[in-house]
Amino acid sequence: MNGADAPTVAVGLPSVERAVALFCRFPGIGRKSAQRMVHHLLRQGKEEVEQLLRALQDLADRVGQCVVCHNLAEGELCWICNNDRRDASLLCVVEESMDLLAIERAGLFNGYYHVLGGRLNPLGGMGPEQLNLTTLEARLRSGQTTELIIATNPTVEGEATAHYVAQMAAPLVARLTRLAYGMPMGGELEYLDESTLYQALAGRRVF
Amino acid sequence: MNGADAPTVAVGLPSVERAVALFCRFPGIGRKSAQRMVHHLLRQGKEEVEQLLRALQDLADRVGQCVVCHNLAEGELCWICNNDRRDASLLCVVEESMDLLAIERAGLFNGYYHVLGGRLNPLGGMGPEQLNLTTLEARLRSGQTTELIIATNPTVEGEATAHYVAQMAAPLVARLTRLAYGMPMGGELEYLDESTLYQALAGRRVF
Repeated sequence: MNGADAPTVAVGLPSVERAVALFCRFPGIGRKSAQRMVHHLLRQGKEEVEQLLRALQDLADRVGQCVVCHNLAEGELCWICNNDRRDASLLCVVEESMDLLAIERAGLFNGYYHVLGGRLNPLGGMGPEQLNLTTLEARLRSGQTTELIIATNPTVEGEATAHYVAQMAAPLVARLTRLAYGMPMGGELEYLDESTLYQALAGRRVF
Repeated sequence: MNGADAPTVAVGLPSVERAVALFCRFPGIGRKSAQRMVHHLLRQGKEEVEQLLRALQDLADRVGQCVVCHNLAEGELCWICNNDRRDASLLCVVEESMDLLAIERAGLFNGYYHVLGGRLNPLGGMGPEQLNLTTLEARLRSGQTTELIIATNPTVEGEATAHYVAQMAAPLVARLTRLAYGMPMGGELEYLDESTLYQALAGRRVF
Protein backbone atom coordinates (compact mmCIF):
# COMPACT_ATOMS: atom_id res chain seq x y z
CA MET A 1 0.00 0.00 0.00
CA ASN A 2 1.59 3.29 -1.01
CA GLY A 3 1.29 6.64 0.70
CA ALA A 4 -1.18 8.07 -1.82
CA ASP A 5 -3.68 5.28 -1.20
CA ALA A 6 -3.42 5.35 2.58
CA PRO A 7 -5.87 7.81 4.08
CA THR A 8 -4.40 10.03 6.77
CA VAL A 9 -5.51 8.75 10.14
CA ALA A 10 -6.14 11.41 12.76
CA VAL A 11 -8.25 11.27 15.89
CA GLY A 12 -11.17 13.58 15.26
CA LEU A 13 -12.02 15.89 12.39
CA PRO A 14 -9.98 19.03 11.73
CA SER A 15 -13.00 21.33 11.75
CA VAL A 16 -14.22 19.80 15.01
CA GLU A 17 -10.77 20.06 16.57
CA ARG A 18 -10.53 23.71 15.53
CA ALA A 19 -13.84 24.53 17.16
CA VAL A 20 -12.84 22.61 20.30
CA ALA A 21 -9.58 24.58 20.48
CA LEU A 22 -11.50 27.87 20.27
CA PHE A 23 -13.97 26.84 22.96
CA CYS A 24 -11.01 25.91 25.18
CA ARG A 25 -10.01 29.58 25.23
CA PHE A 26 -13.09 30.50 27.25
CA PRO A 27 -12.42 30.98 30.96
CA GLY A 28 -13.23 27.87 32.97
CA ILE A 29 -13.69 25.68 29.88
CA GLY A 30 -11.29 22.75 29.67
CA ARG A 31 -10.76 20.37 26.76
CA LYS A 32 -13.42 17.94 27.94
CA SER A 33 -16.09 20.61 28.33
CA ALA A 34 -15.15 22.18 25.00
CA GLN A 35 -15.45 18.80 23.29
CA ARG A 36 -18.81 18.20 24.92
CA MET A 37 -20.04 21.61 23.78
CA VAL A 38 -18.97 21.13 20.17
CA HIS A 39 -20.45 17.64 19.99
CA HIS A 40 -23.63 19.00 21.52
CA LEU A 41 -23.80 21.60 18.75
CA LEU A 42 -23.25 18.93 16.11
CA ARG A 43 -26.02 16.81 17.56
CA GLN A 44 -28.38 19.79 17.53
CA GLY A 45 -28.05 20.23 13.81
CA LYS A 46 -27.60 23.21 11.56
CA GLU A 47 -30.39 25.43 12.90
CA GLU A 48 -28.87 25.55 16.38
CA VAL A 49 -25.48 26.42 14.94
CA GLU A 50 -27.01 29.09 12.68
CA GLN A 51 -28.79 30.60 15.66
CA LEU A 52 -25.55 30.76 17.62
CA LEU A 53 -23.80 32.21 14.59
CA ARG A 54 -26.38 34.98 14.30
CA ALA A 55 -26.13 35.77 18.00
CA LEU A 56 -22.34 35.98 17.86
CA GLN A 57 -22.43 38.05 14.69
CA ASP A 58 -24.80 40.37 16.52
CA LEU A 59 -22.37 40.64 19.40
CA ALA A 60 -19.51 41.48 17.05
CA ASP A 61 -21.57 43.99 15.07
CA ARG A 62 -23.56 45.74 17.73
CA VAL A 63 -21.82 45.64 21.05
CA GLY A 64 -19.14 48.17 21.84
CA GLN A 65 -18.12 50.29 24.81
CA CYS A 66 -20.06 53.15 26.34
CA VAL A 67 -18.12 56.33 25.58
CA VAL A 68 -18.72 57.59 29.12
CA CYS A 69 -18.28 54.62 31.45
CA HIS A 70 -16.82 51.81 29.25
CA ASN A 71 -19.71 49.49 30.09
CA LEU A 72 -20.97 47.32 27.22
CA ALA A 73 -23.24 49.35 24.98
CA GLU A 74 -25.12 48.89 21.72
CA GLY A 75 -24.93 52.59 20.91
CA GLU A 76 -22.77 55.47 22.11
CA LEU A 77 -24.08 55.27 25.65
CA CYS A 78 -24.89 52.20 27.76
CA TRP A 79 -28.30 51.68 29.30
CA ILE A 80 -27.05 53.08 32.61
CA CYS A 81 -25.56 56.30 31.24
CA ASN A 82 -28.66 56.65 29.05
CA ASN A 83 -30.85 56.76 32.14
CA ASP A 84 -31.03 60.30 33.48
CA ARG A 85 -33.09 59.33 36.51
CA ARG A 86 -30.12 57.89 38.37
CA ASP A 87 -28.16 59.77 41.03
CA ALA A 88 -25.31 61.62 39.31
CA SER A 89 -23.56 62.34 42.61
CA LEU A 90 -22.69 58.66 43.09
CA LEU A 91 -20.06 56.93 40.97
CA CYS A 92 -19.10 53.30 41.42
CA VAL A 93 -15.82 51.95 40.02
CA VAL A 94 -15.81 48.29 38.96
CA GLU A 95 -13.28 46.10 37.17
CA GLU A 96 -15.53 44.60 34.49
CA SER A 97 -19.05 45.08 33.16
CA MET A 98 -19.98 41.70 34.70
CA ASP A 99 -19.32 43.27 38.12
CA LEU A 100 -21.65 46.11 37.16
CA LEU A 101 -24.37 43.58 36.31
CA ALA A 102 -23.86 41.87 39.68
CA ILE A 103 -24.26 45.19 41.54
CA GLU A 104 -27.32 46.07 39.44
CA ARG A 105 -28.90 42.75 40.38
CA ALA A 106 -28.36 43.57 44.06
CA GLY A 107 -30.76 46.45 43.43
CA LEU A 108 -29.49 48.99 46.01
CA PHE A 109 -27.21 51.23 43.96
CA ASN A 110 -28.79 54.01 41.96
CA GLY A 111 -25.78 56.00 40.77
CA TYR A 112 -23.56 55.67 37.72
CA TYR A 113 -20.58 53.39 37.06
CA HIS A 114 -17.09 53.49 35.68
CA VAL A 115 -15.73 50.24 34.25
CA LEU A 116 -11.94 50.01 34.52
CA GLY A 117 -11.69 47.16 32.02
CA GLY A 118 -9.50 45.02 34.25
CA ARG A 119 -7.30 45.22 37.31
CA LEU A 120 -3.69 46.08 37.97
CA ASN A 121 -1.46 43.10 37.27
CA PRO A 122 2.02 44.30 36.28
CA LEU A 123 3.30 40.78 35.63
CA GLY A 124 0.35 40.09 33.36
CA GLY A 125 0.96 43.29 31.40
CA MET A 126 -1.86 45.26 33.05
CA GLY A 127 -0.47 48.58 34.21
CA PRO A 128 -2.44 51.75 35.02
CA GLU A 129 -2.25 52.77 31.33
CA GLN A 130 -4.27 49.68 30.36
CA LEU A 131 -7.15 50.65 32.67
CA ASN A 132 -9.78 53.28 31.86
CA LEU A 133 -8.34 55.77 34.36
CA THR A 134 -7.97 58.88 32.19
CA THR A 135 -11.70 59.00 31.53
CA LEU A 136 -12.38 58.35 35.23
CA GLU A 137 -10.20 61.27 36.24
CA ALA A 138 -11.92 63.52 33.69
CA ARG A 139 -15.33 62.52 35.06
CA LEU A 140 -14.25 63.28 38.62
CA ARG A 141 -12.77 66.62 37.59
CA SER A 142 -16.11 67.62 36.08
CA GLY A 143 -17.27 67.90 39.71
CA GLN A 144 -20.61 66.06 39.53
CA THR A 145 -19.46 63.19 41.73
CA THR A 146 -19.60 63.65 45.49
CA GLU A 147 -19.05 60.00 46.44
CA LEU A 148 -16.81 57.54 44.65
CA ILE A 149 -17.47 53.91 45.64
CA ILE A 150 -14.62 51.59 44.81
CA ALA A 151 -16.00 48.12 44.08
CA THR A 152 -13.01 46.17 42.80
CA ASN A 153 -12.77 42.49 43.67
CA PRO A 154 -11.56 41.46 47.14
CA THR A 155 -8.42 39.87 45.67
CA VAL A 156 -4.79 40.94 45.90
CA GLU A 157 -4.94 42.53 42.44
CA GLY A 158 -8.34 44.07 43.08
CA GLU A 159 -7.04 45.59 46.32
CA ALA A 160 -3.99 47.01 44.60
CA THR A 161 -6.26 48.51 41.95
CA ALA A 162 -8.52 49.98 44.65
CA HIS A 163 -5.54 51.64 46.33
CA TYR A 164 -4.31 53.05 43.05
CA VAL A 165 -7.75 54.46 42.17
CA ALA A 166 -8.20 55.84 45.69
CA GLN A 167 -4.88 57.70 45.54
CA MET A 168 -5.78 59.25 42.20
CA ALA A 169 -9.34 60.13 43.25
CA ALA A 170 -8.76 61.39 46.82
CA PRO A 171 -8.16 65.05 45.89
CA LEU A 172 -11.11 65.06 43.49
CA VAL A 173 -14.09 63.76 45.52
CA ALA A 174 -15.61 64.63 48.88
CA ARG A 175 -16.27 61.02 49.89
CA LEU A 176 -14.31 57.95 48.93
CA THR A 177 -15.77 54.60 50.01
CA ARG A 178 -15.41 50.93 49.28
CA LEU A 179 -17.63 47.86 49.64
CA ALA A 180 -17.77 46.29 53.08
CA TYR A 181 -15.88 43.08 53.83
CA GLY A 182 -17.52 40.49 56.00
CA MET A 183 -19.45 37.27 56.17
CA PRO A 184 -21.24 36.33 52.95
CA MET A 185 -24.98 35.90 53.53
CA GLY A 186 -26.11 32.31 53.88
CA GLY A 187 -22.63 31.05 54.62
CA GLU A 188 -21.59 29.29 57.81
CA LEU A 189 -19.15 30.89 60.18
CA GLU A 190 -17.22 27.70 60.74
CA TYR A 191 -16.35 27.43 57.04
CA LEU A 192 -15.18 31.03 56.65
CA ASP A 193 -11.52 31.65 55.92
CA GLU A 194 -9.57 33.56 58.56
CA SER A 195 -9.10 36.72 56.56
CA THR A 196 -12.82 37.12 55.93
CA LEU A 197 -13.56 36.47 59.58
CA TYR A 198 -10.85 38.96 60.53
CA GLN A 199 -12.50 41.57 58.30
CA ALA A 200 -15.95 40.75 59.66
CA LEU A 201 -14.70 41.24 63.21
CA ALA A 202 -12.72 44.37 62.45
CA GLY A 203 -15.73 45.86 60.67
CA ARG A 204 -18.32 44.84 63.29
CA ARG A 205 -21.29 47.14 63.70
CA VAL A 206 -23.54 48.17 66.60
CA PHE A 207 -26.68 46.04 66.81
CA MET B 1 -41.25 62.95 32.18
CA ASN B 2 -43.31 61.12 29.60
CA GLY B 3 -42.82 57.58 28.36
CA ALA B 4 -41.25 58.58 25.05
CA ASP B 5 -38.43 60.46 26.78
CA ALA B 6 -37.74 57.79 29.35
CA PRO B 7 -35.21 55.24 28.10
CA THR B 8 -36.19 51.65 28.77
CA VAL B 9 -34.12 50.34 31.63
CA ALA B 10 -33.12 46.68 31.41
CA VAL B 11 -30.27 44.84 33.06
CA GLY B 12 -27.88 43.94 30.28
CA LEU B 13 -28.03 44.37 26.53
CA PRO B 14 -30.48 42.35 24.43
CA SER B 15 -27.80 41.01 22.09
CA VAL B 16 -25.65 39.98 25.05
CA GLU B 17 -28.60 38.36 26.81
CA ARG B 18 -29.48 36.44 23.64
CA ALA B 19 -25.95 35.08 23.34
CA VAL B 20 -25.92 34.17 27.04
CA ALA B 21 -29.23 32.30 26.63
CA LEU B 22 -27.77 30.29 23.74
CA PHE B 23 -24.59 29.43 25.63
CA CYS B 24 -26.78 28.26 28.52
CA ARG B 25 -28.11 25.49 26.29
CA PHE B 26 -24.74 23.75 26.24
CA PRO B 27 -24.50 20.79 28.58
CA GLY B 28 -22.89 21.69 31.88
CA ILE B 29 -22.99 25.44 31.20
CA GLY B 30 -25.05 27.44 33.68
CA ARG B 31 -26.04 31.08 33.49
CA LYS B 32 -22.94 32.29 35.30
CA SER B 33 -20.54 30.40 33.03
CA ALA B 34 -22.45 31.47 29.93
CA GLN B 35 -22.26 35.09 31.02
CA ARG B 36 -18.55 34.75 31.70
CA MET B 37 -18.01 33.24 28.26
CA VAL B 38 -19.91 35.96 26.42
CA HIS B 39 -18.16 38.73 28.34
CA HIS B 40 -14.85 37.04 27.63
CA LEU B 41 -15.67 37.12 23.91
CA LEU B 42 -16.60 40.79 24.11
CA ARG B 43 -13.34 41.60 25.85
CA GLN B 44 -11.39 39.76 23.17
CA GLY B 45 -12.70 41.99 20.43
CA LYS B 46 -14.00 41.34 16.98
CA GLU B 47 -11.21 39.13 15.62
CA GLU B 48 -11.79 36.48 18.29
CA VAL B 49 -15.52 36.50 17.58
CA GLU B 50 -14.89 36.31 13.82
CA GLN B 51 -12.58 33.34 14.34
CA LEU B 52 -15.22 31.53 16.37
CA LEU B 53 -17.83 32.41 13.76
CA ARG B 54 -15.72 30.90 11.00
CA ALA B 55 -15.09 27.75 13.03
CA LEU B 56 -18.79 27.31 13.75
CA GLN B 57 -19.73 28.03 10.15
CA ASP B 58 -17.23 25.33 9.17
CA LEU B 59 -18.89 22.91 11.56
CA ALA B 60 -22.30 23.64 10.12
CA ASP B 61 -21.10 23.42 6.53
CA ARG B 62 -18.70 20.52 6.60
CA VAL B 63 -19.52 18.12 9.36
CA GLY B 64 -22.16 15.49 8.84
CA GLN B 65 -22.62 11.82 9.66
CA CYS B 66 -20.68 8.92 8.23
CA VAL B 67 -23.07 6.95 6.01
CA VAL B 68 -21.74 3.67 7.39
CA CYS B 69 -21.24 4.14 11.13
CA HIS B 70 -22.90 7.52 11.95
CA ASN B 71 -19.66 8.90 13.36
CA LEU B 72 -18.94 12.57 12.61
CA ALA B 73 -17.56 12.90 9.09
CA GLU B 74 -16.53 15.66 6.74
CA GLY B 75 -17.31 13.58 3.67
CA GLU B 76 -19.40 10.44 3.06
CA LEU B 77 -17.21 8.27 5.27
CA CYS B 78 -15.58 9.12 8.59
CA TRP B 79 -11.84 8.77 9.12
CA ILE B 80 -12.34 5.37 10.72
CA CYS B 81 -14.46 3.84 7.95
CA ASN B 82 -12.09 5.42 5.44
CA ASN B 83 -9.20 3.44 6.90
CA ASP B 84 -9.06 -0.01 5.32
CA ARG B 85 -6.21 -1.20 7.53
CA ARG B 86 -8.43 -1.74 10.54
CA ASP B 87 -9.84 -5.12 11.56
CA ALA B 88 -13.21 -5.57 9.84
CA SER B 89 -14.13 -8.55 12.03
CA LEU B 90 -14.45 -6.30 15.10
CA LEU B 91 -17.33 -3.90 15.54
CA CYS B 92 -17.76 -1.70 18.59
CA VAL B 93 -21.12 -0.11 19.42
CA VAL B 94 -21.02 3.25 21.22
CA GLU B 95 -23.67 5.78 22.17
CA GLU B 96 -22.04 8.94 20.81
CA SER B 97 -19.05 9.88 18.68
CA MET B 98 -17.41 11.33 21.79
CA ASP B 99 -17.33 7.80 23.20
CA LEU B 100 -15.64 6.66 20.00
CA LEU B 101 -12.97 9.34 20.48
CA ALA B 102 -12.41 8.19 24.06
CA ILE B 103 -11.91 4.58 22.93
CA GLU B 104 -9.60 5.71 20.13
CA ARG B 105 -7.50 7.60 22.65
CA ALA B 106 -7.15 4.43 24.72
CA GLY B 107 -5.31 3.03 21.69
CA LEU B 108 -6.15 -0.68 22.01
CA PHE B 109 -9.09 -1.12 19.67
CA ASN B 110 -8.39 -1.56 15.98
CA GLY B 111 -11.79 -2.48 14.57
CA TYR B 112 -14.67 -0.38 13.33
CA TYR B 113 -17.46 1.41 15.19
CA HIS B 114 -21.18 1.92 15.08
CA VAL B 115 -22.51 5.09 16.71
CA LEU B 116 -26.05 4.67 18.02
CA GLY B 117 -26.64 8.40 18.38
CA GLY B 118 -27.97 8.15 21.92
CA ARG B 119 -29.30 5.66 24.42
CA LEU B 120 -32.70 4.24 25.18
CA ASN B 121 -34.71 6.59 27.34
CA PRO B 122 -38.40 6.05 26.71
CA LEU B 123 -39.46 8.88 29.06
CA GLY B 124 -37.13 11.27 27.24
CA GLY B 125 -38.55 10.25 23.87
CA MET B 126 -35.64 8.00 22.89
CA GLY B 127 -37.01 4.67 21.73
CA PRO B 128 -35.23 2.05 19.59
CA GLU B 129 -36.47 3.85 16.44
CA GLN B 130 -34.47 6.96 17.39
CA LEU B 131 -31.20 4.98 17.55
CA ASN B 132 -29.16 3.93 14.51
CA LEU B 133 -30.16 0.28 14.86
CA THR B 134 -31.41 -0.50 11.34
CA THR B 135 -27.99 0.25 9.85
CA LEU B 136 -26.33 -1.76 12.64
CA GLU B 137 -28.50 -4.78 11.87
CA ALA B 138 -27.71 -4.47 8.15
CA ARG B 139 -23.99 -4.32 8.89
CA LEU B 140 -24.20 -7.43 11.07
CA ARG B 141 -26.25 -9.27 8.44
CA SER B 142 -23.51 -8.59 5.87
CA GLY B 143 -21.50 -11.18 7.85
CA GLN B 144 -18.15 -9.39 8.14
CA THR B 145 -18.38 -8.97 11.90
CA THR B 146 -17.33 -11.87 14.10
CA GLU B 147 -17.23 -9.97 17.39
CA LEU B 148 -19.57 -7.20 18.46
CA ILE B 149 -18.31 -5.22 21.45
CA ILE B 150 -21.00 -3.27 23.22
CA ALA B 151 -19.50 -0.16 24.76
CA THR B 152 -22.49 1.82 26.00
CA ASN B 153 -22.12 3.83 29.19
CA PRO B 154 -22.29 2.06 32.57
CA THR B 155 -25.50 3.88 33.47
CA VAL B 156 -29.04 2.57 33.80
CA GLU B 157 -29.96 3.81 30.34
CA GLY B 158 -26.69 2.64 28.84
CA GLU B 159 -27.27 -0.82 30.32
CA ALA B 160 -30.79 -0.97 28.95
CA THR B 161 -29.46 0.01 25.55
CA ALA B 162 -26.75 -2.66 25.78
CA HIS B 163 -29.34 -5.33 26.53
CA TYR B 164 -31.51 -4.20 23.65
CA VAL B 165 -28.60 -4.24 21.21
CA ALA B 166 -27.41 -7.63 22.53
CA GLN B 167 -30.82 -9.19 21.99
CA MET B 168 -30.96 -7.89 18.44
CA ALA B 169 -27.39 -8.89 17.62
CA ALA B 170 -27.18 -12.30 19.32
CA PRO B 171 -28.37 -14.37 16.33
CA LEU B 172 -26.14 -12.40 13.95
CA VAL B 173 -22.64 -12.56 15.46
CA ALA B 174 -20.40 -15.33 16.76
CA ARG B 175 -19.12 -13.38 19.74
CA LEU B 176 -20.93 -10.71 21.71
CA THR B 177 -18.90 -8.90 24.39
CA ARG B 178 -19.02 -5.80 26.51
CA LEU B 179 -16.48 -3.60 28.29
CA ALA B 180 -15.30 -4.84 31.69
CA TYR B 181 -16.59 -3.24 34.87
CA GLY B 182 -14.21 -2.69 37.73
CA MET B 183 -11.96 -0.27 39.53
CA PRO B 184 -10.97 2.80 37.54
CA MET B 185 -7.17 3.07 37.26
CA GLY B 186 -5.61 5.56 39.64
CA GLY B 187 -8.64 5.59 41.92
CA GLU B 188 -8.62 4.58 45.53
CA LEU B 189 -10.52 1.54 46.68
CA GLU B 190 -11.87 3.25 49.77
CA TYR B 191 -13.63 5.88 47.67
CA LEU B 192 -15.25 3.44 45.24
CA ASP B 193 -19.01 3.11 45.26
CA GLU B 194 -20.42 -0.26 46.26
CA SER B 195 -21.74 -1.23 42.85
CA THR B 196 -18.36 -0.70 41.19
CA LEU B 197 -16.63 -2.68 43.92
CA TYR B 198 -19.26 -5.38 43.56
CA GLN B 199 -18.54 -5.58 39.85
CA ALA B 200 -14.78 -5.54 40.42
CA LEU B 201 -15.12 -8.47 42.83
CA ALA B 202 -17.57 -10.41 40.68
CA GLY B 203 -15.30 -9.96 37.66
CA ARG B 204 -12.02 -10.75 39.48
CA ARG B 205 -9.34 -12.39 37.39
CA VAL B 206 -6.54 -14.87 38.05
CA PHE B 207 -3.23 -13.13 38.85
